[in-house]
Amino acid sequence: MQPSGKFHLGNYFGALDNWIKLQHEYECIFSIVDLHALTSSYEDTSKIPENIQNMALDWLSAGLDPEKNIIFVQSHVKEHAELHLLLSMITPLAWLERVPTYKDKLQQLGLAGKEINTYGFLGYPELMTADIILYKADTVPVGEDQIPHLELAREITRRFNNLYGPIFPEPQARLSKAPTLPGIDGRKMSKSYGNEISFSATPDEIRARVQMMVTDPQRVKKTDPGHPEVCTVYAFHKIFNPTEVDDIGANCRAGTIGCVACKKRLADRIVEFLADVHVRRQALEKNPGRINEILTDGAERARKLAAATMQEVKQAMHLV
Amino acid sequence: MQPSGKFHLGNYFGALDNWIKLQHEYECIFSIVDLHALTSSYEDTSKIPENIQNMALDWLSAGLDPEKNIIFVQSHVKEHAELHLLLSMITPLAWLERVPTYKDKLQQLGLAGKEINTYGFLGYPELMTADIILYKADTVPVGEDQIPHLELAREITRRFNNLYGPIFPEPQARLSKAPTLPGIDGRKMSKSYGNEISFSATPDEIRARVQMMVTDPQRVKKTDPGHPEVCTVYAFHKIFNPTEVDDIGANCRAGTIGCVACKKRLADRIVEFLADVHVRRQALEKNPGRINEILTDGAERARKLAAATMQEVKQAMHLV
Repeated sequence: MQPSGKFHLGNYFGALDNWIKLQHEYECIFSIVDLHALTSSYEDTSKIPENIQNMALDWLSAGLDPEKNIIFVQSHVKEHAELHLLLSMITPLAWLERVPTYKDKLQQLGLAGKEINTYGFLGYPELMTADIILYKADTVPVGEDQIPHLELAREITRRFNNLYGPIFPEPQARLSKAPTLPGIDGRKMSKSYGNEISFSATPDEIRARVQMMVTDPQRVKKTDPGHPEVCTVYAFHKIFNPTEVDDIGANCRAGTIGCVACKKRLADRIVEFLADVHVRRQALEKNPGRINEILTDGAERARKLAAATMQEVKQAMHLV
Repeated sequence: MQPSGKFHLGNYFGALDNWIKLQHEYECIFSIVDLHALTSSYEDTSKIPENIQNMALDWLSAGLDPEKNIIFVQSHVKEHAELHLLLSMITPLAWLERVPTYKDKLQQLGLAGKEINTYGFLGYPELMTADIILYKADTVPVGEDQIPHLELAREITRRFNNLYGPIFPEPQARLSKAPTLPGIDGRKMSKSYGNEISFSATPDEIRARVQMMVTDPQRVKKTDPGHPEVCTVYAFHKIFNPTEVDDIGANCRAGTIGCVACKKRLADRIVEFLADVHVRRQALEKNPGRINEILTDGAERARKLAAATMQEVKQAMHLV
C-alpha cells in the first residue's frame, strides 16, 4: 500500500479490514511501498517519512500483528529494485503500454497539472510484479481495479519461468469484495471532499461527524416515512451494525425512529468498533521508538527471504 | 564495457588502450556491465560468466592495475539497480524515446530477428546514468557514438539535483579519438567477418594472421610501385610502427620493399606490442582464482562508495 497520509474509515474498509482477516489464514507480507509513491509524487517527497509512520501506526492499531506477519518499508529492501531491473529486461514495452490504468491515470494526473509521464510511471506494474514474486507469493489480495496489474504480473512471471526455469509461482488474485463506505455527505469518502471520518478519530470526533451525516432529504419530521436506501446513516448501519440494521430500516420506513436517535445508535457502534484500535494506538503513541523497531525487524525478515530468492534468480540467469 | 567475448585488437584500440593511459591521470572505476548485456541478450545468458572472466583477463593482461583502479562486475553492486529505479521516477519517458541510438538499434536488432523492444532496453541510458553518477564520476571516457547517452545522463543528473539538491557532479565526456584498426581483409575488424586478430593471439598466430592480410591488389611484383593508402598492412604499421611507417611508405611507393618483408616487420611489432600482455596473461592463467579475487575486492570497494552515495540520495529524497 502506498503511504499517502492517515487512513479514514473508507481506506480501512478498502483493504485493511480484509488483511486483518487474512493474517489468520496465510503467512502474510505487508509492505508500505514508498518507492511506488514516487511514481506520482516525486516532485515533493517531504511528506513520505511522516506518511510511512502514520501508515504503520494505522496498520498496527487496526490489529495487524507484527510478529505473525512481515511488515516493512519497500525501500528498505534493495532486492525490490534489483529484481525490478532484471524483470525490465524481459518485459516487452508493449505489455506495459497496454495496461488499461496506465493511460487513464496518465490523463487524470496530467489534467491535475502533474508531469507524470516518466519511465518509472510506465514501469509501475513491473515494480509491483517484483514486489510480489520476490517473496514467491502465491496469493495477492487485490481489488477489482488491480486485476489487470496482477494479470500482467502473471504474464511476466510466466515469461521469466519460461526463459530461466520455474523459479516463481504464478501469483493468484484473491479478490476481496470491499464494502464501499460513503462519506458523511453521501459521496465517495475522500479526504479531498472533506467528508471522511478519520480512522484515528476520537469518540467525540466520531459523534460529531455522524451528527453531520446527510439523511433522507424528504424526511422532515420524525413521523414522516423515511427512505433508508438514500440515507448515509443507514449505509453505515449496514456495515457497523449488522444485527440491528433490518430493525432500523423498518422503523425508519414506518417513521418510528428519528434521525437523531438513529445517528446516536450508529455513533455508538463506530466508537465500539474503533475502541480496540484506540487502545492499540495509544500504546504505540506512548512508545515512539516502537514503530521503527517493528519496521526494522520486518525489513530484516523480508530481506532474508528476498536475498534467498535473488540468489536463485541470479543463478538461473547466470549472473553469479 | 559489456562482456561480449574475447577481445580482438580492434576492441583493444576502441577503448582499452585509452583506459591504460587514463589510469595514470585519474582515479578510475572500470565496470564489466553484465546487466547491460541483458538488454540485448536476455534470451540466452549462458555465456555471461565466461565472457566476464574473459573480459577481466583481457583487461588485466592489457595492464589495467587492480590496485590502482576499482575493477568490478556491475551486478555485484545492488546499488546500481537501486539508483536506476529512483532515477526512473524522475526521467520523462520522452527523453529516453528520443535517444537517437534507441530507434536505430531497435531496428537493427529487430532485423536480426531479436525481440528486443523491452522496458529494460528503452531504459538502457537510465542504467548507464546510474552507473556513472553512483560514484559521483566527473569524467567519462566515451567514443563519439556515446555522446547522446552522456548528454542524457547530464540532463537526468541536472534534474535530480534540481529536485533534491546538488548531490551529483554533472559528468563530463572525455572524448578519445580511437584509431580504427581494419581487419586483415581491410574491412572493419569484427568477429562476425572472421577478419580479426585476437588480443590473446600467440606470436605464431599473429604471424599467420599478418601473412593473410590483403595488400595493394595492383601490386604484383615487388618492384611494382605500391599504394600504401589502400594497404591493410600499412594501416597497421601506422599504429604499431610509428617510427618506421614513413620509411616503409616511401619504400612501398618506390617498389623497394616487398610485401613479405613488410609483413614480417609488422608482425614483429605486433608480437612486441603484445609481449607484456602475454606475460601478464600467462601469470593470471596460472592462478585461476586470482581474477575472482580481484573482482570480489573491486566489488567491495565499489560498494563502499555506492552505499555512501545512496545514503545521501535517500536522505535527499526523504526515503530513510
